[in-house]
Amino acid sequence: MTPAAASGRGLPHPAREEIRLESVLHAPSDPMRLRIVRELAAESSEPACSDFVLPVTRSTTTHHFRVLRESGVVRQVYRGTAKMNGLRADDLDALFPGLLDRVLEAAARQAARPER
Amino acid sequence: MTPAAASGRGLPHPAREEIRLESVLHAPSDPMRLRIVRELAAESSEPACSDFVLPVTRSTTTHHFRVLRESGVVRQVYRGTAKMNGLRADDLDALFPGLLDRVLEAAARQAARPER
Repeated sequence: MTPAAASGRGLPHPAREEIRLESVLHAPSDPMRLRIVRELAAESSEPACSDFVLPVTRSTTTHHFRVLRESGVVRQVYRGTAKMNGLRADDLDALFPGLLDRVLEAAARQAARPER
Repeated sequence: MTPAAASGRGLPHPAREEIRLESVLHAPSDPMRLRIVRELAAESSEPACSDFVLPVTRSTTTHHFRVLRESGVVRQVYRGTAKMNGLRADDLDALFPGLLDRVLEAAARQAARPER
């Protein structure tokens, strides 16, 4: 995390060239984080963390968003006191073409599977 | 892990329909496991665990292969006392088309990046 890569009040983000594939794969390897990534991909706006209703505690939600931000998958900016969230699809596509799309497609296929 | 999904002497594998995307993403989210996946993808044969020379202890190597097997990314079969390894590319492509290829491409791009 270079200082220049930080954006917003004290929210460090990796610069594009600092984003590591291992971290990008790790970020959605948790069911809650995969769900957040899918919801962000489906959003045209940049929702606040508090817009996500997840079956986990608020501190766990905060943790998941931090993992997503520090991996380079999500950009978080403050608007007032709310953290607004967006996928870094441009950065990810530049680094790893097609990867995010395949992950989202795979998640959609899995969600459509009959329950076992 | 259904009993029917087990193959070889006591090495449990998830059946194709039991493989979860989260686990498939988690498996190569470690640098050593990503390296193993890349080497397996480049192999025409099915190398033994002992063919991999990794800068980690033997027990850590064994752990990484177990994570890869239990996630559904790698199939391990005994030949004598050696565990032979192969990517489950057919299963992964059937479940999540194009995902493994994009991960391998992404890994190749990352490996070709200038060191920072």
